[in-house]
Amino acid sequence: MTEGSQSRMVYLSGEMVPEAEARISIFDSSVLLGHCVTESSRTFQHRPFLLEQHIDRLYRSLKVARIHLQHTPAELLQITLNVLDANRPMMATGDDCWIVHNISAGSLKLGPGSNQVNPATVMIFTNHLALRGWARFYTDGCHAVTSMSRAVPSQTLDARIKNRSRMAYTIADAEARLVDPDAQCVILDIDGNVSENKGGNLFVVSDGELRTPSTDNCLAGLSRQTVIELAQEQGLVVREMKLQMYDLYTADEVFFTSTPYCMMPATKFNGLPIGDGCVGGITQQLLAAWSERVGMDIVAQAQRQI
Amino acid sequence: MTEGSQSRMVYLSGEMVPEAEARISIFDSSVLLGHCVTESSRTFQHRPFLLEQHIDRLYRSLKVARIHLQHTPAELLQITLNVLDANRPMMATGDDCWIVHNISAGSLKLGPGSNQVNPATVMIFTNHLALRGWARFYTDGCHAVTSMSRAVPSQTLDARIKNRSRMAYTIADAEARLVDPDAQCVILDIDGNVSENKGGNLFVVSDGELRTPSTDNCLAGLSRQTVIELAQEQGLVVREMKLQMYDLYTADEVFFTSTPYCMMPATKFNGLPIGDGCVGGITQQLLAAWSERVGMDIVAQAQRQI
Amino acid sequence: MTEGSQSRMVYLSGEMVPEAEARISIFDSSVLLGHCVTESSRTFQHRPFLLEQHIDRLYRSLKVARIHLQHTPAELLQITLNVLDANRPMMATGDDCWIVHNISAGSLKLGPGSNQVNPATVMIFTNHLALRGWARFYTDGCHAVTSMSRAVPSQTLDARIKNRSRMAYTIADAEARLVDPDAQCVILDIDGNVSENKGGNLFVVSDGELRTPSTDNCLAGLSRQTVIELAQEQGLVVREMKLQMYDLYTADEVFFTSTPYCMMPATKFNGLPIGDGCVGGITQQLLAAWSERVGMDIVAQAQRQI
Amino acid sequence: MTEGSQSRMVYLSGEMVPEAEARISIFDSSVLLGHCVTESSRTFQHRPFLLEQHIDRLYRSLKVARIHLQHTPAELLQITLNVLDANRPMMATGDDCWIVHNISAGSLKLGPGSNQVNPATVMIFTNHLALRGWARFYTDGCHAVTSMSRAVPSQTLDARIKNRSRMAYTIADAEARLVDPDAQCVILDIDGNVSENKGGNLFVVSDGELRTPSTDNCLAGLSRQTVIELAQEQGLVVREMKLQMYDLYTADEVFFTSTPYCMMPATKFNGLPIGDGCVGGITQQLLAAWSERVGMDIVAQAQRQI
Amino acid sequence: MTEGSQSRMVYLSGEMVPEAEARISIFDSSVLLGHCVTESSRTFQHRPFLLEQHIDRLYRSLKVARIHLQHTPAELLQITLNVLDANRPMMATGDDCWIVHNISAGSLKLGPGSNQVNPATVMIFTNHLALRGWARFYTDGCHAVTSMSRAVPSQTLDARIKNRSRMAYTIADAEARLVDPDAQCVILDIDGNVSENKGGNLFVVSDGELRTPSTDNCLAGLSRQTVIELAQEQGLVVREMKLQMYDLYTADEVFFTSTPYCMMPATKFNGLPIGDGCVGGITQQLLAAWSERVGMDIVAQAQRQI
Amino acid sequence: MTEGSQSRMVYLSGEMVPEAEARISIFDSSVLLGHCVTESSRTFQHRPFLLEQHIDRLYRSLKVARIHLQHTPAELLQITLNVLDANRPMMATGDDCWIVHNISAGSLKLGPGSNQVNPATVMIFTNHLALRGWARFYTDGCHAVTSMSRAVPSQTLDARIKNRSRMAYTIADAEARLVDPDAQCVILDIDGNVSENKGGNLFVVSDGELRTPSTDNCLAGLSRQTVIELAQEQGLVVREMKLQMYDLYTADEVFFTSTPYCMMPATKFNGLPIGDGCVGGITQQLLAAWSERVGMDIVAQAQRQI
Repeated sequence: MTEGSQSRMVYLSGEMVPEAEARISIFDSSVLLGHCVTESSRTFQHRPFLLEQHIDRLYRSLKVARIHLQHTPAELLQITLNVLDANRPMMATGDDCWIVHNISAGSLKLGPGSNQVNPATVMIFTNHLALRGWARFYTDGCHAVTSMSRAVPSQTLDARIKNRSRMAYTIADAEARLVDPDAQCVILDIDGNVSENKGGNLFVVSDGELRTPSTDNCLAGLSRQTVIELAQEQGLVVREMKLQMYDLYTADEVFFTSTPYCMMPATKFNGLPIGDGCVGGITQQLLAAWSERVGMDIVAQAQRQI
Repeated sequence: MTEGSQSRMVYLSGEMVPEAEARISIFDSSVLLGHCVTESSRTFQHRPFLLEQHIDRLYRSLKVARIHLQHTPAELLQITLNVLDANRPMMATGDDCWIVHNISAGSLKLGPGSNQVNPATVMIFTNHLALRGWARFYTDGCHAVTSMSRAVPSQTLDARIKNRSRMAYTIADAEARLVDPDAQCVILDIDGNVSENKGGNLFVVSDGELRTPSTDNCLAGLSRQTVIELAQEQGLVVREMKLQMYDLYTADEVFFTSTPYCMMPATKFNGLPIGDGCVGGITQQLLAAWSERVGMDIVAQAQRQI
Repeated sequence: MTEGSQSRMVYLSGEMVPEAEARISIFDSSVLLGHCVTESSRTFQHRPFLLEQHIDRLYRSLKVARIHLQHTPAELLQITLNVLDANRPMMATGDDCWIVHNISAGSLKLGPGSNQVNPATVMIFTNHLALRGWARFYTDGCHAVTSMSRAVPSQTLDARIKNRSRMAYTIADAEARLVDPDAQCVILDIDGNVSENKGGNLFVVSDGELRTPSTDNCLAGLSRQTVIELAQEQGLVVREMKLQMYDLYTADEVFFTSTPYCMMPATKFNGLPIGDGCVGGITQQLLAAWSERVGMDIVAQAQRQI
Repeated sequence: MTEGSQSRMVYLSGEMVPEAEARISIFDSSVLLGHCVTESSRTFQHRPFLLEQHIDRLYRSLKVARIHLQHTPAELLQITLNVLDANRPMMATGDDCWIVHNISAGSLKLGPGSNQVNPATVMIFTNHLALRGWARFYTDGCHAVTSMSRAVPSQTLDARIKNRSRMAYTIADAEARLVDPDAQCVILDIDGNVSENKGGNLFVVSDGELRTPSTDNCLAGLSRQTVIELAQEQGLVVREMKLQMYDLYTADEVFFTSTPYCMMPATKFNGLPIGDGCVGGITQQLLAAWSERVGMDIVAQAQRQI
Repeated sequence: MTEGSQSRMVYLSGEMVPEAEARISIFDSSVLLGHCVTESSRTFQHRPFLLEQHIDRLYRSLKVARIHLQHTPAELLQITLNVLDANRPMMATGDDCWIVHNISAGSLKLGPGSNQVNPATVMIFTNHLALRGWARFYTDGCHAVTSMSRAVPSQTLDARIKNRSRMAYTIADAEARLVDPDAQCVILDIDGNVSENKGGNLFVVSDGELRTPSTDNCLAGLSRQTVIELAQEQGLVVREMKLQMYDLYTADEVFFTSTPYCMMPATKFNGLPIGDGCVGGITQQLLAAWSERVGMDIVAQAQRQI
Repeated sequence: MTEGSQSRMVYLSGEMVPEAEARISIFDSSVLLGHCVTESSRTFQHRPFLLEQHIDRLYRSLKVARIHLQHTPAELLQITLNVLDANRPMMATGDDCWIVHNISAGSLKLGPGSNQVNPATVMIFTNHLALRGWARFYTDGCHAVTSMSRAVPSQTLDARIKNRSRMAYTIADAEARLVDPDAQCVILDIDGNVSENKGGNLFVVSDGELRTPSTDNCLAGLSRQTVIELAQEQGLVVREMKLQMYDLYTADEVFFTSTPYCMMPATKFNGLPIGDGCVGGITQQLLAAWSERVGMDIVAQAQRQI
């Protein structure tokens, strides 16, 4: 997973190790139970974006997942910045990187209990932000496809706990790709309302308004939050509401939001064109606002990687 | 996680490595997605029990989880026996061991797709079967407690895919332990019917019949299957049916089934005694039948560890 | 919709008219409300199969749909036989025909009420049983694919009312065809259990047993009933139970049942092979038993049309 | 269905035919599958009301129902106006007419597929707007009664696809009429929230606010939209929210909205008086505002027909 | 509530008091919380029927409702027989009586807790078994009508806890009586399956089999159990299964079971005749078997009261 | 339940009786059916608070519960004030009292019907407002704990009917107390959303906003309404929205509202601290505003009782 000759460095529970040596015990709770919370943030022009907010959310996830972490948020922020600094040499000028946190409940003991008995395993790594796979969607739009399986209900595991027990989402994604190998999945909740993408949120533009599911059935994404703020700055009405397949079929515009690509327009839904089948004006306007906010052209960066 | 001076050996994707060195990349799909299927079997008197059936079920899980494994079932069986042989020196005469298989979709590539791009990561290990934590439940019974969170519904991720995306179950277990730190959780499905324990199935004895949920909302446990067979051999009626909290409150006997302990009697449910508050006769009869089937005293083995 | 030069004759509310002239008012309740019940039966060797049972079920549908029909079952049977006789000249020796009944609540009056104010519209027609589209599935198996939309719940409209308000099923079928243009859809109910195909029922063979959903969430198909009877005659265990996607992924065999093709093997489910990917032995055995029961080779008849 | 000696003319897939000759094949997808989308608009003083909006919604329904129509919206509008013109001679001065569009997927071919193989069947007709059945409800209010059956859930078929697969609604209406032959049904969704009337929407007035279900479980009615606009113009607060039977029992006022009658007050709900049992002031105010908007007295028009 | 000049005697928490003086504090948990469990049994020819079983079930209800009763089952049985003896003088030769137990958690203390702080309030009374209201249903059948409200789900309060928190059932009964003042309500569960009557169970006869909901959504009635036993003695197949409105509409026979009337035939369901609209043969056969079992003519007893 | 030597007086269906003699027949519908609606209001400085609003809500409950009360609201208000006056001598200067209304459908007749045949039983009493049990929660906060059982769904019995069929809530409360004997229960609805406390509503403070479930799944509490008004006066944003366990775990502040204690802060949820584990600033600010509104220190009053 490296780019270039020099090795990326990963922070692993107190040590900075080369990426290829970043290994954890097969008895770690992340492996044995998927008991691991996570954050994925990114840089723009090598500067971390909303990193404090990501770390705040991480601590909320830790609490609800009942994982005890031996660092304060401030310490974790500093460690993260150290990881970023250690990997700066690998970042090309026009590129940026992911910053990923994975925190598990540490190594497990097999037996009747399930409480955390060891310190949390802390994995923090950066990664070249490879955007090639998404780049053409900025101009062509992607194909959004409903999966057959449904999202984990909040009474089972709240989607706002950003976690690594993602098998359900992985299978849902594979189902959507049966329709189109490049499809981006739209996962419905068990009542049939739109929930989320495998790793992002979803917006529709209809009647000139921006609409997105409220967070009672999906991740409270920070990219989602950024879009809401940008839209409100642009004077757009933003409504959190139940969306259903009908809303996607009849929307003027649809886009996903997620950390790596920020916003990904969809121009097809379940085989039918969305709006006029082209990337929509409000989507472009919001992407431009985001680019302006971070002082660089988000789309151009991705397209340079093609 | 070792016992004694010699190190256990773990099979890790083609190599036999000492347990302490059994590490996987933090970019493995098991860590990043909980995308890992599993089996836990055990030995009785150092002989594997139902190992072929566990491997068959593993391949069913692999298929539905869309993980491609580079071995045939026969090859995997042979590798497993090799692992067992490699660890025989660590097994004391009266003890037995777990045999655990974890198969993930291998190392991931961050980006838009989620298909498996690398060979599966194969983790096979044995482990001293530490029964101390459960031993007293054979005579005293455990305290079964309903969790507040509910099981993953089958339309989200079928419980019969024995998988490692277990955060929901881990949190449910912690919830039950709020009532009693030694509680064993009883997880209800989203309709309020009894589903399963964090890692096992559940039976009640009422009106002289053995009753257990059908597998449309829980794992199709092989210990569960063993109990059903033993009960039928004993002439007991076994019914797969919906069970609800009322059935547990009013049962004559309740027990859990799982690989390590086989059967674990519960004598209390949500703070109230089950039946007369003692381990029941049919439970004991079935445990004895199981001991007879495997040629050793299951309860005595556990109690020797106290 | 005719074959050959002579025109088929349709019974239309008291008259026998050529197929091309079989037209109904656009104010008919079948057009304006989908308020129309139906039966589809067929002949084997030009003899109607289970026609009385189809007519009995039709009267059950009429009752629950609150449509009053001005004929007794015996009269309707006689009319049906007359239609069949009128169309015998069009039936080639090796061919057979559909016999379809559609009964609507007659012509409507626009306004506040919705009670039937006119005599029922009675449409009875036969049709060449064109099996070409299904013929290759007898040997190759079809591709069963889960739709994204879910079946009409019984508390809304019971699937056992065989009715013509089929838009939900038509859309579900189109969704499945996004995966494969020749897919046969598998519609789940709102709880995620397998319900039915657009126009048929579904069976799996697992552990040597035949399993099919009970009729609380699907049509009580007469082909389904025939398969159950044939299987029991063959000494097979038949269980009506909840089935879920997992059951189809892990089945040894899967097949659909419906009037025109009797049984249609599926060898692929959501892109993965079912069993060994070939039409299964029990499926073939049951098809053979059916052929024997009706005194003709069902598969050969279809294959002659290729 | 005619008034007077001259015959109304119906547009039927390219031809203008007398109403009595407006017939379609019994093999049409509207008859065989209820696969037909629809719009019902009306005139006020012989001028069509919101016709463009109805046609827009029709195209949204066509898209989601995957019916291909061979006309552009502009063409369809022109055809509609032609139908209206052709029938103007039948309209008395004080009367108005329905304008109904039914578009099906055309004639079907029996067999494995369900794709549209023939051009859409286009049925456009006007009809004398017979208001006699509703006229007394403007002054006395109607009796709103909950049906036993529940609305089609959106995950099955979105209510916003205005469609002709209406058997569930027809049966629900008959159930409500068991309580009172003149009852207007109130259909609940599968969670027990108020959804819609057989062919209209529903509002309550409570605490001086106008409240109506949001469109995630009911038709997005244009009469509903008109009431919302009129209310906002009058300075009333309008809230889209979940309503339950309690809200109707305890409302100050309740009314239905639908194209033919615009607004129909209800003064009784499940046998109990609504408010003081009389048509409420806000209902009357909104009706008056609507009358003003269309330049004629809506209530007087209906009452002239008694 | 007395018959004749002498007063019935009621057992009230240790005392035998005349019925008119049988009063409890308005601070009793039965009044303030409906926190009261109950049994209703009856005599046949002045002998109690299944009294031990009723008392057993009462103790199951007490346990799950967490009400502590200061008597053993044997003591309670003796007290009950004393009540019966005390009231024998009031029983006419051909008549019988109810035996009702109500046990509440005693007098409450207002404040933060809800635990039982006082001894249980024990109310045991007999009552003339007034059958006049049901008598004609034995020959004419009653009208079964679905309520609009749904049964309490088991995840809220298990119907098998026979309890006095019956407001939901009382309202459901009133709803059914909107259709017919003599209607007997059929309450559906929240999934739309038949649950129970306000105070009894429900059976259908179809295809020669007796079918009734399993007790996961309804009271485990002892009359229900008696019918099952009688039917099995008669060689009838009895199936516990999900029933839906369709099953009642299309049944050959339908009847309710409850302590006072044993079995009550229904000949109409939601306005439509059941079977041929007459009391069915199997219903009569089972009623006769019950009469034989208890050595008296159940129907004749009721009809003498008309 | 008295304080001091003098007896409190209770209004019981027309008479003023000493509390100890306030008894009702065991045949009352409140005892036999829990068919009883209720209001609990209180005084501040001996003056009733929102009494008219409580009486208005009582009449709404009576209507939906189909209980006929022989008094007008104005009469009931006057009777209530008379009860209050009769009990003023028992009120110490610094204390206050509950005012409780219980209205049942009167004495029942056993038999097939369930209509009200006797006048309503009217129970109106005051009670010393014993706050000792809650007093320390104002400073320490209470422990909020999720019950295992779920709230009664509105399609069964709307929570806005303030009623005495409270067994489900009583059991849920006992379940929460398994975790902590002083726990205050948080009951989820059947979809897993926060509904209500056994006898109160629930608010969270997050992101500086006040959030509470909308009343479609919980009681429309008047204390809840008071908090909303006070918050809006303080310039706080108040949102009615779905809340889930995650919202409570991650809230900055949580509090309950109910008549006796007005607001009760929670500082622990399911064993984890809420916010910083101390009573929050907004909670204190709102409590202070309430104290100011009623002209007395609510917290001090409670603490004087310790």
